[in-house]
Amino acid sequence: MKLVRYSIAGEASVRGGTLEGDVIREYAGDLFEGIELTGRTCRLEEVTLHAPFSPRHIIGIGANFAPEGVPKPDMPELPVLFFKPTTAVIGPGAPIRLPPGAKNVKFEAELAVVIGRTARRVDPERAGEYIFGFTVANDVSAPEFFHPNGHWTVGKSFDTFCPLGPWLDTAFDDRDARIRATVNGAEKQNGSVERMITPVRHMISRVSEFMTLQPGDVLLTGTPPGADVIRGGDTVICSIEGLGSLSNPVLGADAK
Amino acid sequence: MKLVRYSIAGEASVRGGTLEGDVIREYAGDLFEGIELTGRTCRLEEVTLHAPFSPRHIIGIGANFAPEGVPKPDMPELPVLFFKPTTAVIGPGAPIRLPPGAKNVKFEAELAVVIGRTARRVDPERAGEYIFGFTVANDVSAPEFFHPNGHWTVGKSFDTFCPLGPWLDTAFDDRDARIRATVNGAEKQNGSVERMITPVRHMISRVSEFMTLQPGDVLLTGTPPGADVIRGGDTVICSIEGLGSLSNPVLGADAK
Repeated sequence: MKLVRYSIAGEASVRGGTLEGDVIREYAGDLFEGIELTGRTCRLEEVTLHAPFSPRHIIGIGANFAPEGVPKPDMPELPVLFFKPTTAVIGPGAPIRLPPGAKNVKFEAELAVVIGRTARRVDPERAGEYIFGFTVANDVSAPEFFHPNGHWTVGKSFDTFCPLGPWLDTAFDDRDARIRATVNGAEKQNGSVERMITPVRHMISRVSEFMTLQPGDVLLTGTPPGADVIRGGDTVICSIEGLGSLSNPVLGADAK
Repeated sequence: MKLVRYSIAGEASVRGGTLEGDVIREYAGDLFEGIELTGRTCRLEEVTLHAPFSPRHIIGIGANFAPEGVPKPDMPELPVLFFKPTTAVIGPGAPIRLPPGAKNVKFEAELAVVIGRTARRVDPERAGEYIFGFTVANDVSAPEFFHPNGHWTVGKSFDTFCPLGPWLDTAFDDRDARIRATVNGAEKQNGSVERMITPVRHMISRVSEFMTLQPGDVLLTGTPPGADVIRGGDTVICSIEGLGSLSNPVLGADAK
C-alpha cells in the first residue's frame, strides 16, 4: 500500500490518503494506530504532496556505504549516528533552502525506513517485523557547519534539510534496492543497498539497543558514494527503483 | 506559575495541573496553546509527578561552563550542540537505568529552558520573549558510548537519560541562578549560570539560526564543573535555588 499526505488547491488542510495508480483515497485516523477510508477520492495530479507522514524522531547513520569493488569493512560496534529535527522535513517539490553564507551544501539520497511498532533491543533477525514501510529521503547536509570536534548537529538540522517522499510504501521490498540521485538531470549517485556496512535490519537493532524506537520514527540508512554540492537553481531528484522519486528544487539564501 | 503533570494513585491517566503551595489545580488543554482550570484539585503529596511537559525537541549544549576563577573564553561561533530523543525523558523520582555494560555513566545538572513561541533567527536581545519557562534537567550521559569521531548521539540518548522536573516555572528569573547536584547527599556541582560561555538567550538565538524552534522545544544549557559517575543504588539530586529539586534513583542494568 502506498500512503500519501496531500492538500487540495485552495485548501489549507493536509489530508492523508492511499494511492493506487493515480487515484488517492482519503483516510481518517492515525497511520500507525489504524486508518479508515472516508470514501472521498481525488487524482494525484490535482494535489500537492507533502511528506507522507510526520516523523517522531529522525535518526541518521554516517559513512554507511562501502564503495563498489572494495571489500566491505566489518560492521562498526558503534556506528556514527545522528538526529535531524522534524522541523527539517519537507515534501516532494518543496524547496531546499540554502542557509545564509553556506557554500557547500550537499544532497544525500537515502532509503528511509519507517518504524511501525515499539522496538526495544530487538535482534537483527526480528527487526524486519518492526518496519512499517519505506520512503525516499534526501539527507541534506552542510559539512561547513559540522563542528571540528565531530558533532554534525547543526550541519544536518537546518529547516528544509530533510525532504521525504513521495509516498510511504508498506509493501516495498528493500533487499535489492538501488539508490540514485541526479542533479539537473545528471546522475550523481547510483548504489545498491548491498553496499551498506550496517544493513537496514542491523541498524534498527543497534538503535533499539540505546533508545526505544516508536511508531513514526524513521531511520535514514546512509547514502551511496557521489553526494555532491547543490546550488540555488538546481533540482535534485533522489530515487529508488520500485519505490519512488523525490524531486526538490534548491533555493539560494537570498531567494524569496 | 508552576506547572506539573501528575497521576493519582490507582489511575493510569496523566493529568496537568498548576501548583500553589501543595495544592494542585487540574487544567485541561494544551500547555502552549491555552489551558483552563477544570475545578478539580488535589494535594502534592497524593500524586506521582511526571516530567512537567512533553518536549518536542531536546537540544543540548556541550562544554558550556567555564570553571570559577578563570577568564571566560569567547562564545564559540559554532557551539557543540546535540539532540536527546524524547524517549529519554523521565520525571522526578523515576529511576535512571544504567545501560548493560556501562561503567561510566554521569549525571549533569542543568537549567532547562522551555520555548513558548515559534522562534526563527531571533536576536539574543529578543530571545527572552520566546521563553515559556524553566525546569531542572539531568543530562545523563555515557561518554563510553560517545563515538571516537566526536558524535555524542548514543551516549546521550539511552532511555531514562533525561530526567526533567519537578515542575515548569513560568515566573522563574534565571539571571542569577545557581545549579547544584548531590549524589547520596554529597555535593558534586555548585555553579552559577554566570559561568555559561554561551548564555541562555544567546543559545536560543544560535539554535534558532539553523532550526525553527517551536513551543515545547527545550534547551539544556550545559552543566557546571563536577559532573561525576553514578552507580546502581545512588540517588542523584539536581537542584536550582528558587526553581526546584529533581531527585532520581539510579538502577543498575541488572535491577528489576
